[in-house]
Amino acid sequence: VAVDLSDTPVVTIDLDILDANIERMQRFLNSYGIACRPHIKTHKNPAIAQKQVEAGAIGVTCQKLGEVRVMLEAGVSNILLAYNIVGQAKLDRLRRLAEHGAIVVVCDNVRVAKDLSAAFSKSGRELPVLIECDVGGGRNGVQSPAEAVDLARIIGRLPGLHFDGLMVYPITSSTGAFLTEARKVLESLGLPPTTVSTGGTAGARMIPEVPGVTEHRPGVYVFNDCLTVAANAATWEDCAMRVRSTIVSRPRADRAILDAGSKALSSDRSPATTPALQGFGRIVEYPDAVLYRLDEEHGYVDLSACTPGPQVGEIVSIIPNHACAVTNLHDELVGVRAGRPDTVFAVAARGALR
Amino acid sequence: VAVDLSDTPVVTIDLDILDANIERMQRFLNSYGIACRPHIKTHKNPAIAQKQVEAGAIGVTCQKLGEVRVMLEAGVSNILLAYNIVGQAKLDRLRRLAEHGAIVVVCDNVRVAKDLSAAFSKSGRELPVLIECDVGGGRNGVQSPAEAVDLARIIGRLPGLHFDGLMVYPITSSTGAFLTEARKVLESLGLPPTTVSTGGTAGARMIPEVPGVTEHRPGVYVFNDCLTVAANAATWEDCAMRVRSTIVSRPRADRAILDAGSKALSSDRSPATTPALQGFGRIVEYPDAVLYRLDEEHGYVDLSACTPGPQVGEIVSIIPNHACAVTNLHDELVGVRAGRPDTVFAVAARGALR
Repeated sequence: VAVDLSDTPVVTIDLDILDANIERMQRFLNSYGIACRPHIKTHKNPAIAQKQVEAGAIGVTCQKLGEVRVMLEAGVSNILLAYNIVGQAKLDRLRRLAEHGAIVVVCDNVRVAKDLSAAFSKSGRELPVLIECDVGGGRNGVQSPAEAVDLARIIGRLPGLHFDGLMVYPITSSTGAFLTEARKVLESLGLPPTTVSTGGTAGARMIPEVPGVTEHRPGVYVFNDCLTVAANAATWEDCAMRVRSTIVSRPRADRAILDAGSKALSSDRSPATTPALQGFGRIVEYPDAVLYRLDEEHGYVDLSACTPGPQVGEIVSIIPNHACAVTNLHDELVGVRAGRPDTVFAVAARGALR
Repeated sequence: VAVDLSDTPVVTIDLDILDANIERMQRFLNSYGIACRPHIKTHKNPAIAQKQVEAGAIGVTCQKLGEVRVMLEAGVSNILLAYNIVGQAKLDRLRRLAEHGAIVVVCDNVRVAKDLSAAFSKSGRELPVLIECDVGGGRNGVQSPAEAVDLARIIGRLPGLHFDGLMVYPITSSTGAFLTEARKVLESLGLPPTTVSTGGTAGARMIPEVPGVTEHRPGVYVFNDCLTVAANAATWEDCAMRVRSTIVSRPRADRAILDAGSKALSSDRSPATTPALQGFGRIVEYPDAVLYRLDEEHGYVDLSACTPGPQVGEIVSIIPNHACAVTNLHDELVGVRAGRPDTVFAVAARGALR
C-alpha cells in the first residue's frame, strides 16, 4: 500500500508479531479448554477482530455501544458488552443492536438490571446478563459473593433478562475463592453460572488458579506495550506497535525534541521504576534515551546517557506505554511486514465513547 | 440543535463564557497594543477561530500542517505554523498550502532553515520565518541570544526565506532580557525583528514585563480548565468546557464509577497540590468528590468527603484538567446557551498529527 512511513508521527503494527501474539494467546487458552473472547479496545478494528476469530476466538468484548455497532456492521456478531448500560438513549440503541447479533451484557446493580429488563421485556428475546464482580480491582462490580447472589436472583426474576454468569477483571489472588463461593450458592439456588469470564493480558497466567473459568478476555496482547513488558507478560520482541517519530530539534547536546507528543503517544504513564521502562515510551534505536516529558505535539528526550544521539531529521521508533490509548488517538494503523507497508487498518471504533 | 445531552459522555461549551473569554483576552492585548494570534489547538474548529478573528485577532497559530489545511479551507488565511517542519512530504505540503494564505513558520536550527530554503527558493515567494527561542521553557528553540543572531544571519542569506522575527513560549522572568539582547544585536546587523511573538494564557499577565512584544498567542483561554485555574489565570466561572458523564455504578458508599475515563478526559494530570484541584478533573456538582483514577472508559470517584453523593443514573459535569487534550479526543463539542444545545462544533482538526 502507498503509505509514506517517513511522514511522521505514524503508527505501525508488525503483522508477523501480531499474528504470533494472537496465535500464542489462543493456544494458551485452548490448553486449558477456555474460550478466548478478546477485548477490541486495543485495536478498534474489525479486520484484526476477524483475525482473532479465525484463530479461534468465540467472539469479542466491547466496552461501549459504538464499538458494538462497528463490530456488528463488520460481521463480528458474538459480543460481550462489558459495561453497565445507563440511560434511555443507550438502552434504545442496545435493543436495536441486539437484533443483529448475540449480545451479552454485564450489570452490577439493581437499577441497571431493572432498566435492562424494561428495555427488553417486550422485545421477544431474553438478554443474557453477566454480573460484574469487584474482586480486589477496586473498580465497579458487586463487592461480595452474597451481593452477586442477591443480584442474580433479581435478574433471574426480571422479565426480558437471563442470568448467564459472572465476570471479573482483573484476576487477583482472591478471585478463585470469590467465584467458588458465589458459584456454590448460585448452584444451590438453581442459578448455576453458564459463563465465568475473566479478563486481562497479564492476568492470563493466573487462570490455572481460578476454578471454573469458561472464557477469558485479553486485550493488549495483540500489540503489547511498555506496560505489558513491565508486567512480565511480554518481551520487547512481542511488541507489534511502534510510533514512528522524527527528531525536529536538538536544542542542546543532551536534549532532542520529537514530533510525537501526547496527541500521538497519550499521557499514560508507566508504573515501572526500572530506568528502561520509565518515561512515556521506549525509543527502540536509543534504549538509553529517556522520553521524560510530553506536550501535545512535542516529545522531550534526555540523551545524557546516549550522546551524541539522533540528529534532526532522523526517525526513531517508539514502543508506547499503552497501546490501547495510542490506537484511540489515531485514524489509521499501518500494518507492516519486514518494515514495509502492507495493510492500513482504519481505527473504525476510535472515540466510540457512547 | 438536536443533541441529547443525557447521552454521555458529551462535551459542552458554554457560549456566553466562550464569548466573554475571547472578548476579555482581546481587550487585554489591545490595551498594550499587542496583536492577538490565538492558538487553535484548544478548539480545533474553524467557527471558533472565526469568532476570535471577528473579535480582533490578526490570524491564528497552528502546530501542525493538518491544522493549517483545516483553517485555510475554512477561510482563516493568516497563520503562524509554530513548528519546525522536517521531511520532504511535509515541505511539499507546506509549499502548496503557502499558496493559499499568509503563512509564517518557525525554525530553531540550520538544518530546518536549509530545508525550508530548498523548498521555497524556486516558489517565487519568500517564506517569513521566526526563530524559536528557548528562554527557560526547556523545550526546543535556540539557547541564547547569540544563537538566535547566528541563525537569523543564516536565514537572512538563504534564498526563499525572509527573517521575520523571534518567537518564545512560555514567558519567563528571563524572556525580556533575552529578547532585548537579541534585538539589540539584530538591529545593529540590519536584521531588526518585525515580529516578536509570545505565547501562553497564564503568561499573558507577564507581557508588560517584556519589551517589544508585537503579538501574543494564547490558546486555552477560550475554554479554560483546571490547569488555568490552578495557574490563577482564570476562575471556575471562566471555564466554558464541561464533560458531562453519567454515574454507572456505586459499588461502595464511598465510590462512584463514571462513564468518562481517559478516552473522554485524557490522562493529563494537574500539577496542583490543593485538594480542590487534584485528580483528573473537577466535578462541578460535587466539588468535594475526587476523581482519583481513570481507566479508558471508567472514572473512579472517591465520595468519602461528600456522602451520600450521586446515585446511578445521575449526570455530573466535569471541568477537565486540560481542555485541549479533551477536544482532541472528541469529534464534536456541543455549544450550549443557558444549558441548552445551540451549536455543534466539529473538531475538524482533531488528530491532525502531520
